[in-house]
Amino acid sequence: MIKSLLTLDNRHASIEDIKAWLRDRNERVDVRIDPIPFSAMKGWRMAPDHSLHHETGKFFSIEGIRVKTDYPEPRMWEQPIINQPEIGYLGILAKEFDGVLHFLMQAKIEPGNVNNVQLSPTLQATKSNYTRVHGGRFSAYLDFFHHAKSGQIILDQLQSEQGARFLRKRNRNMIVKVREEVPVLEDFCWMTLGQIKEMMQYDNCVNMDTRTVIAGIDFAEHLSSSEDLSSLSDFGRDMMASAAAQNGYKSMREVLSWLTGLKASYDLIIDRVPLNQIEEWECRDDEIVRYDKKYFRVLGVRVHIENREVVSWCQPLVQPMQQGICAFVIKKIDGIDHFLVQAKLECGNRDVFELAPTVQCLSGNIFNGVPKPPFTDYVLNAGSGQIIYDALQSEEGGRFYHEQNRNMIVLADDGFPLDLPPTYHWMTLGQINEFMRYSNYMNIQARSLIAAIKYV
Amino acid sequence: MIKSLLTLDNRHASIEDIKAWLRDRNERVDVRIDPIPFSAMKGWRMAPDHSLHHETGKFFSIEGIRVKTDYPEPRMWEQPIINQPEIGYLGILAKEFDGVLHFLMQAKIEPGNVNNVQLSPTLQATKSNYTRVHGGRFSAYLDFFHHAKSGQIILDQLQSEQGARFLRKRNRNMIVKVREEVPVLEDFCWMTLGQIKEMMQYDNCVNMDTRTVIAGIDFAEHLSSSEDLSSLSDFGRDMMASAAAQNGYKSMREVLSWLTGLKASYDLIIDRVPLNQIEEWECRDDEIVRYDKKYFRVLGVRVHIENREVVSWCQPLVQPMQQGICAFVIKKIDGIDHFLVQAKLECGNRDVFELAPTVQCLSGNIFNGVPKPPFTDYVLNAGSGQIIYDALQSEEGGRFYHEQNRNMIVLADDGFPLDLPPTYHWMTLGQINEFMRYSNYMNIQARSLIAAIKYV
Repeated sequence: MIKSLLTLDNRHASIEDIKAWLRDRNERVDVRIDPIPFSAMKGWRMAPDHSLHHETGKFFSIEGIRVKTDYPEPRMWEQPIINQPEIGYLGILAKEFDGVLHFLMQAKIEPGNVNNVQLSPTLQATKSNYTRVHGGRFSAYLDFFHHAKSGQIILDQLQSEQGARFLRKRNRNMIVKVREEVPVLEDFCWMTLGQIKEMMQYDNCVNMDTRTVIAGIDFAEHLSSSEDLSSLSDFGRDMMASAAAQNGYKSMREVLSWLTGLKASYDLIIDRVPLNQIEEWECRDDEIVRYDKKYFRVLGVRVHIENREVVSWCQPLVQPMQQGICAFVIKKIDGIDHFLVQAKLECGNRDVFELAPTVQCLSGNIFNGVPKPPFTDYVLNAGSGQIIYDALQSEEGGRFYHEQNRNMIVLADDGFPLDLPPTYHWMTLGQINEFMRYSNYMNIQARSLIAAIKYV
Repeated sequence: MIKSLLTLDNRHASIEDIKAWLRDRNERVDVRIDPIPFSAMKGWRMAPDHSLHHETGKFFSIEGIRVKTDYPEPRMWEQPIINQPEIGYLGILAKEFDGVLHFLMQAKIEPGNVNNVQLSPTLQATKSNYTRVHGGRFSAYLDFFHHAKSGQIILDQLQSEQGARFLRKRNRNMIVKVREEVPVLEDFCWMTLGQIKEMMQYDNCVNMDTRTVIAGIDFAEHLSSSEDLSSLSDFGRDMMASAAAQNGYKSMREVLSWLTGLKASYDLIIDRVPLNQIEEWECRDDEIVRYDKKYFRVLGVRVHIENREVVSWCQPLVQPMQQGICAFVIKKIDGIDHFLVQAKLECGNRDVFELAPTVQCLSGNIFNGVPKPPFTDYVLNAGSGQIIYDALQSEEGGRFYHEQNRNMIVLADDGFPLDLPPTYHWMTLGQINEFMRYSNYMNIQARSLIAAIKYV
């Protein structure tokens, strides 16, 4: 695993090959998204309350919810949400070549992607997909995950997705190592972990599903004393040290107690409400949108993909009305890098609060007259020497239309305060990895940033 | 902490004193429970669908749910459930006397207790209690927990309650250590951990809320090399070794992967349904009961307690229709004691499966003609030399009427199989403790048994 992390070349493809391959795939494919009225979406039905359901009752639906919480003070709002109760696989197949672990990645088209094709896991399948509710083809490589033996499983975690958009959705994130020959289908390619992370340095090349799986790897667990670490960058070395630190500025006991206290102190109550009655929103024939045009809108689309064959289907997509920013601030405390982690309440969270990056908010003109969340200005005004990572990354193109957010990792300057507001905490990477293992703690935005950390 | 575990006597009270004190409290109190029609319950209202709500909308309610799951095969049922969304405190105050940690326990009356008074935590308060929705007195000792500083907190976990009866209920389990003088109110007494555990060897002396808090203590964390462990029993020594084992027959990674696989493979979908329409149940004026009288019934009661003063109120109580049995089987594997843990799906679970004892089921004539759950006969037929623990313990007397279950810990004989059915796994006490830390993994029945483990 560590060797794979440090290897930027491989016998199957160099970084330049991968870039060229993605570019080529992108050019060969023609994706057309036509907005259509919801009533014209084939395979979908609109309930009397205007909620949208697949005609099988499976996949996902768009429903209305009322959110009541007392955090940070008593408030109530209503919104549409994506309800997708079934747990799908996000699985990456791994295999050693020349003693280095390689991962089987797919150049996958998703209708909502800004650039059509992105690197995705070997298997990306909802239960409806792999039980073939849609009557389509059987997911390639499913059996490797479905029948994986315990000794083959490198990673196996249930992780959440966007809590502001999905109602308690999560997926099974897996890495399975095989010894046998694996057929490499068209659109698939073996890559090292170093290569995948290198591709994350570019805008919109690695999809969200890949990022969440990669994020869960705990390098400290794979580190042995015989490892040659000479090619680690200085930052990579700092990250390895942080990953090895189970106790940091605060002990795990203190961090868990802080989180317990927040979850116990604040309520998050979700009730279903008829979608056509939700406050501040309007259900039109072809969109569900807020009167003030804020946050996001739901639209109905016909997807038309021309590749080697022509495929076409209809579905709802969620389109953001602003871009967002997700950023971690990192500070050295007693010689160890610590991440500034925020406990964030979002309506779709399974457990009230999840751990989020230092900054996770919409950007643009939304802050006219209202104060920005803590540390937002700090991150936006960071000097170039402080910026470790800065790229646009896409959210899941199967649900979101052209959604990309700015992902940043920023080093704190010496003057950055050690004392934090009550819902913020310093954590080592080792502590973050521990939360990953136990599922449902780190949110997708935090995991996406952790995945982007480069070690060479 | 370890000293407290090994100390059976203290300057405040001996075991005999504690028993006498409980006996005395029991004799002085007169508890009368009169069944009344639901409509006569003062402070409560019955909704048109017969669901029962406190008139403030707080505390708890009795509602109807429809449960759909595909575990172990597709099935559906309906039942009443206790809905208590708010998180309460179960807090024990700790303080050192003569270098030994003592815990402030209360002899508390609960209406449903078989024996009126049981040892309860220092503080046992729902949010409605401590925000004084009922207009009553302020909870004693609340401030010690509400304003505890991070350095004082020994334990702080969110833990679930009975998943077959409560809809996703959980409480904040806390132990807070203080240095200052603490007033000992009437009905309160300082005890060592060894004494509390000794009292659990007797039937119905230590209430469920105490058991869940005590269960969370990880002794391995408190063990130092300077500790005098000569008074440990052989079994206590085995338990300490098991608590220190983070990896056992299976690694934590394997155990987590097993649990992830189960949660991902099976659905648990809960919908609210009108209580007066739930199948197989009948809503009468004074009880909600299944046609076949199985499982439990809900009744309305007027509680009348004569102690130093007279208190009276009305509330619904849930009465079990059978006794139950909860048992752990323990087996030495490679010299380390392992617990046979079951992953169990219950309708009120927050996360589909929780970890349960080897055996957790109703007893009595319910198995006429149907096979008993695995290991039930093994536990019931265990020889006296195999039985480490065997006592009746009460469920929460504030919600359940005269409910007591048989709690057992049984040593496996040499012939006991190492291979287990798919939803069972061997775990060390160290692994169990790790799950306790991350909340929402070990169910209340498992925690109750872990609490009962005696080390001297």
